[in-house]
Amino acid sequence: MYNLLKGKKGIIFGALNDQSIAWKVAERAVEEGAEIVLTNTAVAIRMGTLDELAKTTHAAAVIPADATSVEDLENLFTEAQKALGGKIDFVLHSCAMSVNMRKKRTYDDLDYGFLDKTLDISAVSFHKMMQVAKKLDAIAEGGSILALTYVASHRTFFGYNDMADAKALLESITRSFGYIYGREKQVRVNCISQSPTLTTAGGGIKGFDGMLDFADRMSPLGNASADDCADYCITLFSDLTKKVTMQTLFHDGGFSNMGMSLRGMEQYNKSFIPENTDENGKIIYG
Amino acid sequence: MYNLLKGKKGIIFGALNDQSIAWKVAERAVEEGAEIVLTNTAVAIRMGTLDELAKTTHAAAVIPADATSVEDLENLFTEAQKALGGKIDFVLHSCAMSVNMRKKRTYDDLDYGFLDKTLDISAVSFHKMMQVAKKLDAIAEGGSILALTYVASHRTFFGYNDMADAKALLESITRSFGYIYGREKQVRVNCISQSPTLTTAGGGIKGFDGMLDFADRMSPLGNASADDCADYCITLFSDLTKKVTMQTLFHDGGFSNMGMSLRGMEQYNKSFIPENTDENGKIIYG
Amino acid sequence: MYNLLKGKKGIIFGALNDQSIAWKVAERAVEEGAEIVLTNTAVAIRMGTLDELAKTTHAAAVIPADATSVEDLENLFTEAQKALGGKIDFVLHSCAMSVNMRKKRTYDDLDYGFLDKTLDISAVSFHKMMQVAKKLDAIAEGGSILALTYVASHRTFFGYNDMADAKALLESITRSFGYIYGREKQVRVNCISQSPTLTTAGGGIKGFDGMLDFADRMSPLGNASADDCADYCITLFSDLTKKVTMQTLFHDGGFSNMGMSLRGMEQYNKSFIPENTDENGKIIYG
Amino acid sequence: MYNLLKGKKGIIFGALNDQSIAWKVAERAVEEGAEIVLTNTAVAIRMGTLDELAKTTHAAAVIPADATSVEDLENLFTEAQKALGGKIDFVLHSCAMSVNMRKKRTYDDLDYGFLDKTLDISAVSFHKMMQVAKKLDAIAEGGSILALTYVASHRTFFGYNDMADAKALLESITRSFGYIYGREKQVRVNCISQSPTLTTAGGGIKGFDGMLDFADRMSPLGNASADDCADYCITLFSDLTKKVTMQTLFHDGGFSNMGMSLRGMEQYNKSFIPENTDENGKIIYG
Repeated sequence: MYNLLKGKKGIIFGALNDQSIAWKVAERAVEEGAEIVLTNTAVAIRMGTLDELAKTTHAAAVIPADATSVEDLENLFTEAQKALGGKIDFVLHSCAMSVNMRKKRTYDDLDYGFLDKTLDISAVSFHKMMQVAKKLDAIAEGGSILALTYVASHRTFFGYNDMADAKALLESITRSFGYIYGREKQVRVNCISQSPTLTTAGGGIKGFDGMLDFADRMSPLGNASADDCADYCITLFSDLTKKVTMQTLFHDGGFSNMGMSLRGMEQYNKSFIPENTDENGKIIYG
Repeated sequence: MYNLLKGKKGIIFGALNDQSIAWKVAERAVEEGAEIVLTNTAVAIRMGTLDELAKTTHAAAVIPADATSVEDLENLFTEAQKALGGKIDFVLHSCAMSVNMRKKRTYDDLDYGFLDKTLDISAVSFHKMMQVAKKLDAIAEGGSILALTYVASHRTFFGYNDMADAKALLESITRSFGYIYGREKQVRVNCISQSPTLTTAGGGIKGFDGMLDFADRMSPLGNASADDCADYCITLFSDLTKKVTMQTLFHDGGFSNMGMSLRGMEQYNKSFIPENTDENGKIIYG
Repeated sequence: MYNLLKGKKGIIFGALNDQSIAWKVAERAVEEGAEIVLTNTAVAIRMGTLDELAKTTHAAAVIPADATSVEDLENLFTEAQKALGGKIDFVLHSCAMSVNMRKKRTYDDLDYGFLDKTLDISAVSFHKMMQVAKKLDAIAEGGSILALTYVASHRTFFGYNDMADAKALLESITRSFGYIYGREKQVRVNCISQSPTLTTAGGGIKGFDGMLDFADRMSPLGNASADDCADYCITLFSDLTKKVTMQTLFHDGGFSNMGMSLRGMEQYNKSFIPENTDENGKIIYG
Repeated sequence: MYNLLKGKKGIIFGALNDQSIAWKVAERAVEEGAEIVLTNTAVAIRMGTLDELAKTTHAAAVIPADATSVEDLENLFTEAQKALGGKIDFVLHSCAMSVNMRKKRTYDDLDYGFLDKTLDISAVSFHKMMQVAKKLDAIAEGGSILALTYVASHRTFFGYNDMADAKALLESITRSFGYIYGREKQVRVNCISQSPTLTTAGGGIKGFDGMLDFADRMSPLGNASADDCADYCITLFSDLTKKVTMQTLFHDGGFSNMGMSLRGMEQYNKSFIPENTDENGKIIYG
């Protein structure tokens, strides 16, 4: 609507279906004048509806790639530059998966092979993507690279399991590589720490429903939606944020800086059914 | 019990009655071999039971002082050195008061005169205490100065009002003066960010009951008590922590790094009475 | 250039002359389609060249106001709404002043009357502005309020004096009021933590020259300029960031997340003239 | 000296030689009344002088274990309990190694097999240790588990390479497991973020000499030594800190909260040889 990304070329990782944040980002980027390449694993492309998105966004290409495979990433960045006719201006990394969560292994009973996968897919892949891109000199000077994270990297949420650790690692890679890519190519690297969002991925997390409600009541502006997130990504891909780098940017209606809201507390207090309170309505501590 | 403070001399601000954290700290410091001077405002000394504490701790003196008065502080540090026979090794600042809270002025209807008082009593007094002490060279090399804070300085808790801002200011003063006092006199300055604690002061905060329960359920170790806090203070006054300075140290059973605990969420979910959930028990979002 | 602020109405506090960040923000906001009102103290308006800016930006009005005066702020918000023909969509607070710094009072020799002024002008004024605006219902739903801060609120920089504490207070007010304004009016409130910038204000800080160089070498993208900052402000006033609130947003080329850069260290190591190194070139520690 | 750990049983990982922090912690723990078991990899035991430490500390046993091997850890915790005659009260994890650093692979040219090793040895091993201990119910209620970290997990230091990411992961594991171990067994889990320390490990980091000097000048109390660190660990193993958990505790003379000290800046400014300054001594920016 504003032509904020006019003439820019981008790669969007991780769109699965129209609930995906990456899907919304792709749509908004194109609305803002960008040309894009879409990528995901071959399996995800089959399972999801990425081709549909490719059509509506006139994507220059859909290139399957396993973000944990250096070889696939090399192919991706090479082919994407061909398809787009030049260097890449922006990249969205939206890749996260925990086999431990899927297999209901609790955090004190992790399978370490699964943990390696969690870290590789959800965090190290971000390093691989940047290392490959830098070696191929595939990102234009002043380019912008974004990943999606969650506040669990800073504070523990029960049931978020090894994904919390993966997100902490992801944010550290953001800083570590952001320093190098900034210094050498003026490329900025940031994470957006997004509200819990009802995507296919988010839906798999234990107790997600209650958490979504709690986060919404805690956040003065309510939870940020996938559409909101896409808008925010656009600003970070644009030329108006050229000096923002190495940051974890909270996009969450204020949740990250809340300790307790009135709405949250009022709801919480409803949980004390009469037998848990004394004759004056005071909570009897367990 | 360990003689951790043997031969050390300290000043304890802010004990009102036996619920006060400062009261417990005074008792524990003396148990650990310290000699102390107690201080509070003249009004608080009348209202509370400080003289009783002075007896049981064999305090060298009780010296009334308004912590916002440079003159009173000068008198305090001068007289305390006389009473204790030397320089001061440790100080506890436990002073906080919000007239806005008392008068039920909400945060979007603050009285600015009251706000000035909140900041002066709860934060600037810490600077005054240190500036006076430093000018009088009243603190021994390697001494330790502590203030009490609350996590609301980092994250917003409804109803904590202008005290949150005062605590943020207090923590900044801790850093700013900690730099100078460390550099010049090897004196360390830190804050302890304590769990919500049922003291005369804490009891006045809106919704404190529910908050206490929530914090307790969120914290893997439960809320830290005033006694626990006293123990922790002892370690920070001792010679075993000589290189810790300018920090806000969370003493809260883990609360500060929690996003959501299982116990907290389970309690929260009890709040959804049947009419707020659909036939499958799913929460209907408001 | 993008019409990001088309139809929006804003108030810009604190532009003094064409070095001011606020000046650049005013210019960029108007370029992006906004209509603005400019304000500063009567003294600053006389000393600076605000009227010139008013002309080039076709400002609806220049309204003198002391940001520490509730009365002045009431007049400002009332008159600004008249001049702009409606509620305010965005506000920039760029007000900071330390008499202690001006009078060369070091941080361990503060004048407490001056400190009150520092806090009032540089931090409490932000609360006053919002409280007045909220009482007058002067900000449009979904509006955006920004203040400028500096990383010294988190980490101590020698010579930054009581301004560090003021900035910590400012950021706390951002959170505290951001919660309330978000909850009730969907208004977001944020701070931008900007690189050291050569403005009339910044130029007065002790050792500013060396600090500017150090920050530039530490930051992978170099220091952010006032022009860069204006661009960033535009994104935060726009509708693309509607769920970002209560944040301190670092706009500093990466400085805030740097511990030591290669460029910084190389420069630092040049400081060791031969007499400070041994025959192998190793530093002799002092 | 204080009998702070009287009757307590501990396991110390990672002592190599008398420069090691773990070595000092072992000595201090025993001085404070603890009985200990020492452990390291078989290779490290051969290369270093751990047997010497075992003698002077009357260690109950030296048990070789690769901290990345679940099997070895199971053996360690089983045998340690036998040797010590009961459950373990405290554990120090001091394990970190980067093959990428050793092989001089820069951060934008990482070998991903080496990265996996860095993460496994330096971070995941901490999870493994706790998961094994918890499954064996080897830690006493109220026990204390510590790991050593470095501020590079929060801010980027050139040349610290993938170790920064490992430390971020380590700190996240501290929070994630700290929640669970606290909730279920009242066991606290924390990290100490220590000053750069001249150990065999620390000595291998690029530009370490200059960094050590810079950190020392930046820190108001100077760098914390390995001996200082041992003292601090004692307080965290003791019963006086029973409510501290999930924290990264900075033990660094104040470095972590410094932006720039006067001593640091003065030294930095010496780097500007005459040809880089103008006739007024002002720095000419490059």
